[in-house]
Amino acid sequence: MFRKRHPPVGAMPGTLAMPQDAAPPVIHIMDYGPTHVEEQSGVAPEALPALLTRDSVTWVDVRGLGDERTLRAIGEALGMHALALEDVVNVPQRPKTEAYEGHLFLVVRMPEAEVRTFATEQVSLVLGPRFVVTFQEREGDVFEPVRARIRTGRGPIRRAGADYLGYALVDTVVDAYYPVLERVGDLVEALEEEVITAPTRPTLRRIYALKRTVQELRRTVWPHRDALAALLRDESPYLGASVRVYLRDTHDHAMQLLDVLENYRDTATGLLDVYLSSESNRTNEVMRLLTVVASIFIPLTFLAGVYGMNFEAMPELHSRIGYPVVLATMLLTALGMLAWFRRRGWLGTPEEPAAGPAHEVLEAYLPADERR
Amino acid sequence: MFRKRHPPVGAMPGTLAMPQDAAPPVIHIMDYGPTHVEEQSGVAPEALPALLTRDSVTWVDVRGLGDERTLRAIGEALGMHALALEDVVNVPQRPKTEAYEGHLFLVVRMPEAEVRTFATEQVSLVLGPRFVVTFQEREGDVFEPVRARIRTGRGPIRRAGADYLGYALVDTVVDAYYPVLERVGDLVEALEEEVITAPTRPTLRRIYALKRTVQELRRTVWPHRDALAALLRDESPYLGASVRVYLRDTHDHAMQLLDVLENYRDTATGLLDVYLSSESNRTNEVMRLLTVVASIFIPLTFLAGVYGMNFEAMPELHSRIGYPVVLATMLLTALGMLAWFRRRGWLGTPEEPAAGPAHEVLEAYLPADERR
Amino acid sequence: MFRKRHPPVGAMPGTLAMPQDAAPPVIHIMDYGPTHVEEQSGVAPEALPALLTRDSVTWVDVRGLGDERTLRAIGEALGMHALALEDVVNVPQRPKTEAYEGHLFLVVRMPEAEVRTFATEQVSLVLGPRFVVTFQEREGDVFEPVRARIRTGRGPIRRAGADYLGYALVDTVVDAYYPVLERVGDLVEALEEEVITAPTRPTLRRIYALKRTVQELRRTVWPHRDALAALLRDESPYLGASVRVYLRDTHDHAMQLLDVLENYRDTATGLLDVYLSSESNRTNEVMRLLTVVASIFIPLTFLAGVYGMNFEAMPELHSRIGYPVVLATMLLTALGMLAWFRRRGWLGTPEEPAAGPAHEVLEAYLPADERR
Amino acid sequence: MFRKRHPPVGAMPGTLAMPQDAAPPVIHIMDYGPTHVEEQSGVAPEALPALLTRDSVTWVDVRGLGDERTLRAIGEALGMHALALEDVVNVPQRPKTEAYEGHLFLVVRMPEAEVRTFATEQVSLVLGPRFVVTFQEREGDVFEPVRARIRTGRGPIRRAGADYLGYALVDTVVDAYYPVLERVGDLVEALEEEVITAPTRPTLRRIYALKRTVQELRRTVWPHRDALAALLRDESPYLGASVRVYLRDTHDHAMQLLDVLENYRDTATGLLDVYLSSESNRTNEVMRLLTVVASIFIPLTFLAGVYGMNFEAMPELHSRIGYPVVLATMLLTALGMLAWFRRRGWLGTPEEPAAGPAHEVLEAYLPADERR
Amino acid sequence: MFRKRHPPVGAMPGTLAMPQDAAPPVIHIMDYGPTHVEEQSGVAPEALPALLTRDSVTWVDVRGLGDERTLRAIGEALGMHALALEDVVNVPQRPKTEAYEGHLFLVVRMPEAEVRTFATEQVSLVLGPRFVVTFQEREGDVFEPVRARIRTGRGPIRRAGADYLGYALVDTVVDAYYPVLERVGDLVEALEEEVITAPTRPTLRRIYALKRTVQELRRTVWPHRDALAALLRDESPYLGASVRVYLRDTHDHAMQLLDVLENYRDTATGLLDVYLSSESNRTNEVMRLLTVVASIFIPLTFLAGVYGMNFEAMPELHSRIGYPVVLATMLLTALGMLAWFRRRGWLGTPEEPAAGPAHEVLEAYLPADERR
Repeated sequence: MFRKRHPPVGAMPGTLAMPQDAAPPVIHIMDYGPTHVEEQSGVAPEALPALLTRDSVTWVDVRGLGDERTLRAIGEALGMHALALEDVVNVPQRPKTEAYEGHLFLVVRMPEAEVRTFATEQVSLVLGPRFVVTFQEREGDVFEPVRARIRTGRGPIRRAGADYLGYALVDTVVDAYYPVLERVGDLVEALEEEVITAPTRPTLRRIYALKRTVQELRRTVWPHRDALAALLRDESPYLGASVRVYLRDTHDHAMQLLDVLENYRDTATGLLDVYLSSESNRTNEVMRLLTVVASIFIPLTFLAGVYGMNFEAMPELHSRIGYPVVLATMLLTALGMLAWFRRRGWLGTPEEPAAGPAHEVLEAYLPADERR
Repeated sequence: MFRKRHPPVGAMPGTLAMPQDAAPPVIHIMDYGPTHVEEQSGVAPEALPALLTRDSVTWVDVRGLGDERTLRAIGEALGMHALALEDVVNVPQRPKTEAYEGHLFLVVRMPEAEVRTFATEQVSLVLGPRFVVTFQEREGDVFEPVRARIRTGRGPIRRAGADYLGYALVDTVVDAYYPVLERVGDLVEALEEEVITAPTRPTLRRIYALKRTVQELRRTVWPHRDALAALLRDESPYLGASVRVYLRDTHDHAMQLLDVLENYRDTATGLLDVYLSSESNRTNEVMRLLTVVASIFIPLTFLAGVYGMNFEAMPELHSRIGYPVVLATMLLTALGMLAWFRRRGWLGTPEEPAAGPAHEVLEAYLPADERR
Repeated sequence: MFRKRHPPVGAMPGTLAMPQDAAPPVIHIMDYGPTHVEEQSGVAPEALPALLTRDSVTWVDVRGLGDERTLRAIGEALGMHALALEDVVNVPQRPKTEAYEGHLFLVVRMPEAEVRTFATEQVSLVLGPRFVVTFQEREGDVFEPVRARIRTGRGPIRRAGADYLGYALVDTVVDAYYPVLERVGDLVEALEEEVITAPTRPTLRRIYALKRTVQELRRTVWPHRDALAALLRDESPYLGASVRVYLRDTHDHAMQLLDVLENYRDTATGLLDVYLSSESNRTNEVMRLLTVVASIFIPLTFLAGVYGMNFEAMPELHSRIGYPVVLATMLLTALGMLAWFRRRGWLGTPEEPAAGPAHEVLEAYLPADERR
Repeated sequence: MFRKRHPPVGAMPGTLAMPQDAAPPVIHIMDYGPTHVEEQSGVAPEALPALLTRDSVTWVDVRGLGDERTLRAIGEALGMHALALEDVVNVPQRPKTEAYEGHLFLVVRMPEAEVRTFATEQVSLVLGPRFVVTFQEREGDVFEPVRARIRTGRGPIRRAGADYLGYALVDTVVDAYYPVLERVGDLVEALEEEVITAPTRPTLRRIYALKRTVQELRRTVWPHRDALAALLRDESPYLGASVRVYLRDTHDHAMQLLDVLENYRDTATGLLDVYLSSESNRTNEVMRLLTVVASIFIPLTFLAGVYGMNFEAMPELHSRIGYPVVLATMLLTALGMLAWFRRRGWLGTPEEPAAGPAHEVLEAYLPADERR
Repeated sequence: MFRKRHPPVGAMPGTLAMPQDAAPPVIHIMDYGPTHVEEQSGVAPEALPALLTRDSVTWVDVRGLGDERTLRAIGEALGMHALALEDVVNVPQRPKTEAYEGHLFLVVRMPEAEVRTFATEQVSLVLGPRFVVTFQEREGDVFEPVRARIRTGRGPIRRAGADYLGYALVDTVVDAYYPVLERVGDLVEALEEEVITAPTRPTLRRIYALKRTVQELRRTVWPHRDALAALLRDESPYLGASVRVYLRDTHDHAMQLLDVLENYRDTATGLLDVYLSSESNRTNEVMRLLTVVASIFIPLTFLAGVYGMNFEAMPELHSRIGYPVVLATMLLTALGMLAWFRRRGWLGTPEEPAAGPAHEVLEAYLPADERR
């Protein structure tokens, strides 16, 4: 479930609903320019104002949301609005962008680096003229490659401004959904295989769970698209024209993620239809067997019953050929009915008619990895 | 059902359809500034004009809609439009905001403070330059924390204007939906459990009731979002820029409530699918048992019938080994069919194939509280 | 069915497709000002031009569309466009508003005053600077209260202009849907009761009819909302600012009607789901009884069949205790199977598990009139 | 299927994919003014330029699209864009309007005059300052009444300009859908009757065909609405203000057609639901009969089987009253079960409970022609 | 599945994820003007800058994306943005248009020339003032007819500018979907035939595959429409007014493709309904046979059982006419039940009632190729 931690009803706006099990915040600093990189860990919040007014670009990475006093100190150092700070702490928030005086405020949801489990973590970004501040819920993120690019000076990042760093972080978060979607794609394929070859009860539960996962992913990615579109639309002094071009690209990626997810959703719905139909088909098969067995043996049993009657005057009973004749009649009746059932295709799975044009054309038009 | 009390067709606009069982209105006053707080109860409507023109912020809280004369007096004291007064009395109205000359008029629906029952009550707000008037259907509301903040002077409320008070009240109403959603969330989880472990007839009724409750909640929350968006969009002299920032936050909360409700709605639809499929599965199981029993015993009964025939010339009957041979044949037939049924997986619940990749991946991607 | 009477294909625009069984038009006049009211019936069309240019407000009420010559005369007296006159006669038209030079033209659909049958009648309004002309299909309308307000001089109507009269009539038409919706609401509740307690074949037909009625109502009310929104949006010299405020209220009422209808539609869909599921449940019950009876007696019959065989060498047959032992075996088998079936819950309706949290919470959240 | 004839992929734009079986184009001229009408048939394309520059209004009606050279000659005479000419020939095109320099270009789809078969034909209109050119696929159209109005001089057509002629033609095409919809309406009613009284297998195919027909009609009418809306929105020098008023009326007719079609679509969906439910109901009935027969006779047969056993020591067999007692027991058992089945309502169709309020209200609210 | 090759998460923007099995890029040049055509193959990237600044129109066709160094060289020669180059290489991208300084950038998806398999290939276009550069994934495309038009000088292409060439290429790509849709249309018809005459299990899989193919086609064509609309809307210096007219035509074609696809989608959904209903109908038939056989023989068997009882005192057994009377009773019972079943229409397929108006009207309104 998607639950928001919320302060008590009627609480003063800006009230921080501190997560109980949250780690205390640790501040990491990365300060760089074309010619230098400087990293610091465990910086005190009091040291921030001095750092943020430097000429170089400064990335303040706050990991952990567990201590109200520290967070308030950071917020004051940055001149953050009380509501923005509330959004940082009262996770989860919808991804969004908001323009405050002095900085842009962004909220995104970052999939965990380790893709075994689909969990997301809120990352809040404050983008000022010469600094970027990120708030993460806990240690561990997908930003390592960005840090590597800053350290080694590969690409334009060291020569660009704070807006480029902000873009790089948001872009990294959005791209981190690709591996997640790939795994969901594997699951879709496995389920497709399962539905067609061996559907069982748990298959339904899996399709249901797949649908929910895809829905959840869509709901997570969708507001990113909106937030990016708003960012591109609005005039903000903190985003240069060249970085806007890059952000348009990130926006395209979000669109593409949504395309793929829509595809998965339709596929999941289709799988459900096939599953339900295969289930009703199974009922049909069971019914057919019952009908075949009963239709053959019930008349025969009746015949046997007739000659089991105790009437004194039943001439057939005394005939030498009575018994063999009745047995033969029974055999012929059974064979006749079997033949009739076979002709109606009720014995065994109905055979597929020789593959006609429909089949061939279909094969031809299926995307390559659908053909089997 | 969502029924509006309406005056007779063709009635003069501004006709008040007084609720029959409504309590008579009681007026409570809270007048405050940075340095003082003054509370009064049971104020007469005639005293209002003097109170509303004071320099301090005045909150007039009218509880009960049961007396037309008093309400008209209040309306006149405030200079309210006849239609606005009609909207106050003819509950329920759709949540909305309307700009009148001299004041803003807002209608919101407040969930009851006591969340055991999901009932809502209309709160109408009139927001003027130095005052806020609230009309409630009856005693009892979710505003106690706001009153506490005014009394104790915590937060900016005492230093801010009437617009901030208006925001604080609307925000409190919107936030009051969070506990309601939480309880619906508990219900969703309980139903999910029930559908998967032990679906019964009443389960369907519960899913149906859940869907209706979620629909009703969506229809209640949705117009709040629209009203808040209209408030943010329109230029009103009664809302300061700083309060607009706060209202944007309230708007975000309404969006988030709708996100969660959409999630619940999809889940309820999914539950219905799973329920219906489990029902059809049960039919299948019943059919399978019948088929197994009938398919085994009908042929055997036929065999018994054959040797119950009274033909004179049936050599098997006179053989010493006839009886044991027939019994053995019957036993072998039964065992053979049982084996065949077992191979087709018709005996007992079909066993789940060893958990393959599909299962693992799925587990991995389910949000933590979905895994079981 | 919603059928429009239309002139032959390719007919000249402005061709009037006179309804065959329509009553001849009778003109009623109501002329009023702050100090006088004057009513006339059976006015000749030729007298209209003189009446319409008076200083007082004049309401010309034309009842019956049965005579082309008269209608054309009225149209000419009013300076109506040929197409507007066509819309008056070729009923039904979609509700709409159109601005012509010299007047506003409105089409609305009025539910019949007597709500036993849901039938609507087209009312076309021509709103000029000092007059309102209404065209009704036949005698009998919902405007009696408006006439009473004019006669008695209650409310602002006598002091206001023609635009207020136009508003009063449109508002009365829109409000006339409330009693209709109330009766549909009664029906929804009765059907809900029926579906849950005693669904029969006709229930399905009723749900289907309910859905169609609600659809029809939605399609009737929807264009009113659009027409009112267009009226509020467009600048028309024939509508004063104060009347616009009133029309906004009428627009809100239309929105509320649509809200309620959407609610009914969702409910009807939900009822269909519950009905279909209850039907499939009944099949299930029938199957279960068959399975229980057959599973118990088919094996026993087989056993009886075995000892009905005529083998000479069947030692059990000669034993004194053979018969009682077999009878006891049969009884034990039957009891054993009954016990097994009871354990699986196949006998009688499956008992509901003790009401757990799901139930309680649900009850709590159902709107009061849903709980039973 | 809705197939477009298209030139080979990559063909030069303006390539004409001449229909193979198309008739050669024949040009008919109608030239008229307030005081004269002149008709010519079989005009040569070379004569067109002279005709089109006359002062009177000229309607050039080209019937048949079978000769590329002639069409190109016409196109050049009119100064048509290569793409417009391509749209004329490569039928079917989506209905649309396009502004070219020197003329407006419209494409509409005309239902055939003879409504026995629902087939449509593309009519392309070129509307210039003093002329209208229509291209029809073949002889036979719905324009005869327009020609009659021109010849007899009824209505404003002879006094109006080319734009009015263009409007008259488009209006005639749109109105020609009314008889088509009327026949579909007859079909809807016949199917409704059929579904409720005697649904058979072919009923399903008919509902399916109805749905497709309605879909096809919607897809045909829909773009007309868009094209008309675009025409009303855009400023074109070739359309006078007074003709725009008429076109707004045509636009309203298209909207009304779509309303009716939406109604039919919903009805078709509802019919499908009722059909499917009646099918499942039939299965239910079959099952019930089987269950009743089997439940009554299987236990009786068992009883008979017991007394058919050949045990020596079965005291009942020797009693005089054994046989009558057993027969009586059998009879009582059978009657008891019949009574139980009757009480559960499994014998015969379940009787409808006495018509309660639900029924009455429903009847009351059904549009008159729904009641039966 | 629709999978995007993506560089590692957090990679520098502009990182090229080179396809592993991609062919090395080969550059083909076509340089032409009104009077000359010049073709070159295997041009080196270094030679491009000189070629692109010529006065004549130059089409640079790059086939294969397999070598990063070459592609970067081409990108630099064209002054392409790093992100545009990334979009060229990291296929598949969503079709789109983007305005960069110095050129327009377009991405489209080209169906393969050989329509046996539905596969698409990304074509990226860079449209500058005097040149068009196309990037294809591999050799083989649908552009041969365009090349022929350039070589032979047919049509306006040699006299027109680079924008016309760009249009010709995009138009060719969009038109290449027509043959694909035609084959899907064949498949739809074959499946329709199959569903109605002989539905088997694989039919369901085929319908499911058809739905997916249609969905995939819609998702592929849809963004082309958006991209073309954006191109028409935006002011770009690289597109002349006359070419915009042509592009509007291409946009219409995309709309038409989507119309047809929507039609196919609805048809596929309808086919699924018919298939599922025919499946449930088959269950019904099976049940009916079982019920008929069981209902006839179970009572007869019971009768035989009665006279197989071994009571001493059963007078009928000693009567001469006992046996024939019982046999006759059995025969009459069986015949009676058969007659009753026949009257209820349970034997054989239920006969269709004589074709009434419903049938005739339907036939009449079905598009010609639907009638059978």
